[in-house]
Amino acid sequence: MMRIKRLEGYLESEGLDAFIIGRESSICYFSGSTSGGLLIVKRGIEPQLLVPKLNLELAKEQSRDCYLKPYGQKDLLELMEKILGNECKSVGVDELPLSLFNKIKEKFKDKVFRDREDIVWKMRRVKDADEVRLLEKAGELASIGMEAVREHLEEGVKENEIAAEAVYEMMRNGAQDRAFPLIIASGFRSAYPHADVTDRRLREGDLVTVDMGAVYKNYRSDITRTFVLGSPTKKQREIFELVLNAKAIAITKYKDGLKCSEADAAARNLIKNGGYGDYFIHSLGHGIGLDIHEPPSIGEGNSETLVTGNVVTNEPGIYVPKFGGVRIEDTILVGDGDPKNLTKFDETVEDLTV
Amino acid sequence: MMRIKRLEGYLESEGLDAFIIGRESSICYFSGSTSGGLLIVKRGIEPQLLVPKLNLELAKEQSRDCYLKPYGQKDLLELMEKILGNECKSVGVDELPLSLFNKIKEKFKDKVFRDREDIVWKMRRVKDADEVRLLEKAGELASIGMEAVREHLEEGVKENEIAAEAVYEMMRNGAQDRAFPLIIASGFRSAYPHADVTDRRLREGDLVTVDMGAVYKNYRSDITRTFVLGSPTKKQREIFELVLNAKAIAITKYKDGLKCSEADAAARNLIKNGGYGDYFIHSLGHGIGLDIHEPPSIGEGNSETLVTGNVVTNEPGIYVPKFGGVRIEDTILVGDGDPKNLTKFDETVEDLTV
Repeated sequence: MMRIKRLEGYLESEGLDAFIIGRESSICYFSGSTSGGLLIVKRGIEPQLLVPKLNLELAKEQSRDCYLKPYGQKDLLELMEKILGNECKSVGVDELPLSLFNKIKEKFKDKVFRDREDIVWKMRRVKDADEVRLLEKAGELASIGMEAVREHLEEGVKENEIAAEAVYEMMRNGAQDRAFPLIIASGFRSAYPHADVTDRRLREGDLVTVDMGAVYKNYRSDITRTFVLGSPTKKQREIFELVLNAKAIAITKYKDGLKCSEADAAARNLIKNGGYGDYFIHSLGHGIGLDIHEPPSIGEGNSETLVTGNVVTNEPGIYVPKFGGVRIEDTILVGDGDPKNLTKFDETVEDLTV
Repeated sequence: MMRIKRLEGYLESEGLDAFIIGRESSICYFSGSTSGGLLIVKRGIEPQLLVPKLNLELAKEQSRDCYLKPYGQKDLLELMEKILGNECKSVGVDELPLSLFNKIKEKFKDKVFRDREDIVWKMRRVKDADEVRLLEKAGELASIGMEAVREHLEEGVKENEIAAEAVYEMMRNGAQDRAFPLIIASGFRSAYPHADVTDRRLREGDLVTVDMGAVYKNYRSDITRTFVLGSPTKKQREIFELVLNAKAIAITKYKDGLKCSEADAAARNLIKNGGYGDYFIHSLGHGIGLDIHEPPSIGEGNSETLVTGNVVTNEPGIYVPKFGGVRIEDTILVGDGDPKNLTKFDETVEDLTV
């Protein structure tokens, strides 16, 4: 009930009469349910979880702190009307499909709907002890998956076969799912930060970037390692060391009270000074929790500060078109003292050469 | 180029000056790229794929028929301004995150943005020969996954272990991913149509509903079977037969020119007459392709007609709270003659008893 109470506090302080939450992960955050639908929080009444009829029984098992209202295809807007009433004028919103948002605006002309996902993210970006426990477990499962990858990397194996082994070990060990479609980017494809999985066969000399995570009780982890098949070349080694040094200097900035942009700058400057500035083409990291990408972004433009309870990735990378790329990533818990790494796995070029 | 040309034809006939596509799967449909970003189709110029800087190289490899414009965090709206110009007044949209949609509306006050995802779905819901080939392959992979499930079902095994085996076999055999988080709903949980995967151990007498699919070159399949652990009880058998009979009568309605609601009604009436009408709590089926849920819905309210090239599921189910449920689902290609089943697997209660 704590989370709902805090959201109700924001309604008060932000001058909102109600809040409509359409983002499935946020519904889960506040209600405990993966049923989807819409969660309406309105001052003075119990939170109402509008749940698709077919998920009513599931929501009964999972949900806490809210009143369940099942709906069919046709009666969602009517149900909303009954709950919101005439007295709600200013309504905050956390994500809706565009078509539904337009229907809602059309139907409720007397109300103003404000995109206030920032309020929900302000809460969700600081993880509580229960969440940290699940994120730690998700991190352990990711490390187990990465070990399975290492065991199966060899010339001739296909990218999708590597992915199969990783997901298999994570799920056998308790993951309910992979956290996102795996990236197994081998050879020239390792120059694509967000490559997918193909049936390309690994070859001697390949860089193989493996980016993956596990879902444990709806919480996600994220880890990347780049492996080298055979002996690393001088250039591969040079890129590797720069990335690792960038990661090491960045982690010293994952501290309560420091700006997100500082961590990014530390890594970016190091890579720039090493001559690869044009090839680090994404932000240093992102928040993670029920979603794989959450605020805060650890990026150049973000002057928000990190606080205790943030869980964020640290993932510098260098991508040279046609040549290949290296990315090393861990999921990090920001605390009062040193940050805690939730995804432990070897990271030196020696240890990642197979 | 055919697909883009057809969309340009709709711009003309629907009085739109441009179209902004934000749905990742639709971007893939028109451009071939999984890069995400925004695809802008405007009369008189080449389609412009605004691609996040980090995915530029990937988009270069994957995309066809469009001009690539990389963007960073800050310059998306400016880039849009240059492309849309003053002359675009009426702009169609296919899905955007709500926060971006609101920013776009705020910046381009001279333009009207219309939710016209219906235009894109009108195209995407009729699959061409290339798409059918990929959907067939995705269907085969789903059947392979289901066979792995059958081989591993036994007392004491956990739901997540079953899921691991299914995903493993699909991916080893060429799937790039699972099509959606698997549903392994055993015992009382089989009464939840959209249950997730837990660490519950299977028990003698359980119904075990397994709903899963594969992704092959971005196309998805969807299959469900309910297994029985041990000998089926009289009631389990009764529910099973009703579901199978409903599926059998429904499939005769998967024909070019028939209404979607007819198929649903055929199944629903049969289940009603069997005394379980209150326990069939979802639509009979849904379209499937690059997304797992696409139009058309095979549901009560949908008077659209099926046409050759539609790929839709046929999935009647009966869910009795506390007792359990049965759902049998296949992915079906609607054609000129008999519909074609893309996900072949045994379906009788005898064959699904392990």
